[in-house]
Amino acid sequence: MAAIFRVNMSDLSVSREETGEIYRHLGGRALTSAIVADEVPPNCHPLSAENRLVLAPGLLTGTGAPCSGRLSAGAKSPLTHTIKEANSGGMAAIHLSLCGVQAIVVTGQPAPGKLYRLIVTPKGIAIEPADDLARMGNYDTVARQYERFGNKVSCMSIGPAGEMRLSAATIAVTDIEGRPTRHCGRGGLGAVMGSKGIKVIVVDPTDGQRPRPVDGVQFKQGVERFNTALMGHPLSGEALPKFGTNALANVLNAAGGYPTRNFRQGTFEGVEPISGEHQHDVIVERGGKIAHACHRGCTIRCSRIYVDENGQYVTKGPEYETVWAHGANCGIDDLDAIARMDRIDDDLGLDTIETGATIAVAMEAGVIPFGDAEGAIRLLEEVRQGTALGRLIGSGAEVVGKAYGQVRVPVVKGQAIPAYDPRAVQGIGVTYATSTQGADHTAGYAVCQNVLGVGGTVDPLSPQSQAELSRNLQIATTAIDATGLCLFVAFAVLDDPTTMQGICEMLGGYLGREMTADEFLAFGRKTLARERAFNAAAGFTPADDRLPGFFQTEKLPPHNITFQVTDEQLDTVLADLD
Amino acid sequence: MAAIFRVNMSDLSVSREETGEIYRHLGGRALTSAIVADEVPPNCHPLSAENRLVLAPGLLTGTGAPCSGRLSAGAKSPLTHTIKEANSGGMAAIHLSLCGVQAIVVTGQPAPGKLYRLIVTPKGIAIEPADDLARMGNYDTVARQYERFGNKVSCMSIGPAGEMRLSAATIAVTDIEGRPTRHCGRGGLGAVMGSKGIKVIVVDPTDGQRPRPVDGVQFKQGVERFNTALMGHPLSGEALPKFGTNALANVLNAAGGYPTRNFRQGTFEGVEPISGEHQHDVIVERGGKIAHACHRGCTIRCSRIYVDENGQYVTKGPEYETVWAHGANCGIDDLDAIARMDRIDDDLGLDTIETGATIAVAMEAGVIPFGDAEGAIRLLEEVRQGTALGRLIGSGAEVVGKAYGQVRVPVVKGQAIPAYDPRAVQGIGVTYATSTQGADHTAGYAVCQNVLGVGGTVDPLSPQSQAELSRNLQIATTAIDATGLCLFVAFAVLDDPTTMQGICEMLGGYLGREMTADEFLAFGRKTLARERAFNAAAGFTPADDRLPGFFQTEKLPPHNITFQVTDEQLDTVLADLD
Repeated sequence: MAAIFRVNMSDLSVSREETGEIYRHLGGRALTSAIVADEVPPNCHPLSAENRLVLAPGLLTGTGAPCSGRLSAGAKSPLTHTIKEANSGGMAAIHLSLCGVQAIVVTGQPAPGKLYRLIVTPKGIAIEPADDLARMGNYDTVARQYERFGNKVSCMSIGPAGEMRLSAATIAVTDIEGRPTRHCGRGGLGAVMGSKGIKVIVVDPTDGQRPRPVDGVQFKQGVERFNTALMGHPLSGEALPKFGTNALANVLNAAGGYPTRNFRQGTFEGVEPISGEHQHDVIVERGGKIAHACHRGCTIRCSRIYVDENGQYVTKGPEYETVWAHGANCGIDDLDAIARMDRIDDDLGLDTIETGATIAVAMEAGVIPFGDAEGAIRLLEEVRQGTALGRLIGSGAEVVGKAYGQVRVPVVKGQAIPAYDPRAVQGIGVTYATSTQGADHTAGYAVCQNVLGVGGTVDPLSPQSQAELSRNLQIATTAIDATGLCLFVAFAVLDDPTTMQGICEMLGGYLGREMTADEFLAFGRKTLARERAFNAAAGFTPADDRLPGFFQTEKLPPHNITFQVTDEQLDTVLADLD
Repeated sequence: MAAIFRVNMSDLSVSREETGEIYRHLGGRALTSAIVADEVPPNCHPLSAENRLVLAPGLLTGTGAPCSGRLSAGAKSPLTHTIKEANSGGMAAIHLSLCGVQAIVVTGQPAPGKLYRLIVTPKGIAIEPADDLARMGNYDTVARQYERFGNKVSCMSIGPAGEMRLSAATIAVTDIEGRPTRHCGRGGLGAVMGSKGIKVIVVDPTDGQRPRPVDGVQFKQGVERFNTALMGHPLSGEALPKFGTNALANVLNAAGGYPTRNFRQGTFEGVEPISGEHQHDVIVERGGKIAHACHRGCTIRCSRIYVDENGQYVTKGPEYETVWAHGANCGIDDLDAIARMDRIDDDLGLDTIETGATIAVAMEAGVIPFGDAEGAIRLLEEVRQGTALGRLIGSGAEVVGKAYGQVRVPVVKGQAIPAYDPRAVQGIGVTYATSTQGADHTAGYAVCQNVLGVGGTVDPLSPQSQAELSRNLQIATTAIDATGLCLFVAFAVLDDPTTMQGICEMLGGYLGREMTADEFLAFGRKTLARERAFNAAAGFTPADDRLPGFFQTEKLPPHNITFQVTDEQLDTVLADLD
């Protein structure tokens, strides 16, 4: 039976707790948010000893359910000051599950400047000094671990950004090939890990056991039904494996919602050379890899391996949001330069969305011109060096906006708005404004109905019914984030009712009881309500559930439209969750 | 009759409005806060065209009432994101009053990079381009104005910090000698002026008229009673003229409440060479000036002229808070170095409190060591150059704390805590936490009763009765801030009932009606309630009325005490003002 492990970094002790009633059958975001809400003082400084870092595989992670390898990390965020859950693919969550870990709860804080390694095995968790890894990039950091622990392990690590406790710092998670390419990206959870003095967590699942479904027959039936639905959907079955997430570049550009040069336009004249279609051709031509899975058991395989002109590995993907953040949003149309930035971000442990948005604000302020790819790369190297400018860039768009006296700073609750302009895709704007997590497209991906025609169709330029749409998506997403399932299962969920049936059978089979879709969604509602209560106690109010003013005053070409959803509509979105 | 002048910086137009009923008989903070609360969207970006900058002399300013020359500046603050009033001595308020200006309300925003000069005379307000003043320090800026407009004028100006729209930027106000040594210091109002493209406001009172009391006899009787009380009090009559505000250094050090090295200790081993007593001797020996008035009609004369070893002018004061911020709080005991920093701050237009506190956080982060005076001066020169590090320093302690991943960041609502440790002076901690302005000692100076034995005696180490004390002080202070009277009249107000009688006679005589102390305090309550309502609409809650966590967890030597006032007590302080 999986247990909760507490790692106290003040006295370097570890304890194992059998899961009590309140946390039983919670996984992923449901578990991280419950523990953070129960244990972290809402008013604490996110980098203080009072904060907790909670790492939890999803409820289905490790069971063999398809696409169920997500790792949730939770804490009070140094970027948003809200409760935060950021989840990642890669192999660590599956390995944690095999080691019998329901969650790792990191408390306390060691002496300043000390670095440690945690080693997780089915026997428990050990803590070792790791000062020799100081200021090392994620690539070198994990390479050293594979040298010592062999290639069966996985790693969660921080780069220099996390060590510097920068607000855009990630927790990197190794992929199937053992590269630190997957990230709990948003909200600076790498800075929280850095504040706990943990450089890397190595998970060695040797001799570990898969969690077994109580009702194997029901579970297996669910797996088949679920996977058939995934593979039958045009997005998860065809477009994502072939073109990856960056298939969206041309789609959003055509919709006029592809934010360009710090959200000044909704279309980018240089979209073609950075589009998913072009990316596909480049990768195939150079001998890279498309249809790559970031963890075992992923049947969608949206990832890719990007190589240079000599066929040498550069980075994974890069993903749609990364290509947008370092590309269109900075006026950059050079896919190779973007891939280099993705590689540097992964190595430093920086959220690509926050970092690209931050560089765009710096461009707006005149630090470097829009379109200057080499200048943008130099800014990233400043982060590595820990210069004042680098620390600014690593602290996110809001801080750079403040230091440079800028008004056009696209953030909600301190977190950068991602790759869909809320004026041309009003539904996603509702999610940005109201999410418990700060601006986050994954919190309630209304792009589906607004642009993709998945799950129905809603006029993206109209405020009509966007609040209800976002609410329903946020509830369902929160439920999915508890299971360890990748959010990309949602396309099939929205279009094909057998998908949800499959999920309920997998969950029901695993737990050995009936599970209805309503029960499943109730999970989501309860978790969201917990998160909202934490945020309210931390001082958040409806006044924080707003987009920056310029989205209401500046018309976005080509539709020449502002964000139209009213404050009153926004205030209904997550009301009455209990 | 004085009028409200609206200056629209979007179309460079000026209009004059007769004062309507709602703003009649409002001055200073009462007027700036009323206009900001009525006209500024609480959620707007403080540097956007939607913000207003309101400049208003006090109600008694220009009447000849002693010590009544304060200028109030109001806006939504880019530092605290609250409503903000910061007031200053100097000559500008008196001159505005002579020109018939009840308030200047600056709206809109010109094209980026454009700079303007306003010229205020009894005939009205003119706007001129002033691009030739770009990036000029306040000293050179005002010298150019005196060259052109003669030495009868006064100036309100911003330095490079305000032009860069940095959150610690001030509005400088010239003193009797025409030097830019007085400041609307706190909350970054210089950045708001910079965002409006106004480099300098020249006020030429030639042919202006003093506002006349309706009942001259009552007014004159009040003036005499009031001034007799001021001069009879040991602080305003003796200590302040002789030793200046820095008389407090030894007093706070003896009380164990003199924050040292970023609030790590309550006593500074190097206090003697930076004390007011030593400062007095240095100034007298070198041929500087003590008992200097910052504006005509000041009878307290707490300012001084600080000169170097050759008797050459360096700066005014420096004041207690400045000596603390750049001195003890940074572990620096060199008064000449501190005076140079004060001069640079005045020239750049930086709040000395915020800037010293920021440098101390940078020292905590290891940017330079504690005690490094030359390093601190170099940091200020980085601000002048507009480097990334300089922009960080000019953005205040919270931003530097974020960029350097620091937990011990002494701010409330984003504004640095000033020169009295809230653990050793618990009453002032209540004011820091609950003020509508962010951490601000002048908002309710409980140091009086906690340390100075003025207005009674309260145990500074006990939470007992501190909430009520702070409430009463905050109400009275807000009323005083409406009159244009310097806050240093409060010592006599607290100890000698004839002082308040004199104030009421001056106000009553000026307005031509009876004025009671209760009516006077009602002014304060009403203004505070307006400010609280603005902040609530901007998203502030009781969770924001808290000190940083380390004041509750770290014991301050030598008393080895934490901040003891409970959250529940804090929540009573400004409840039920209406």
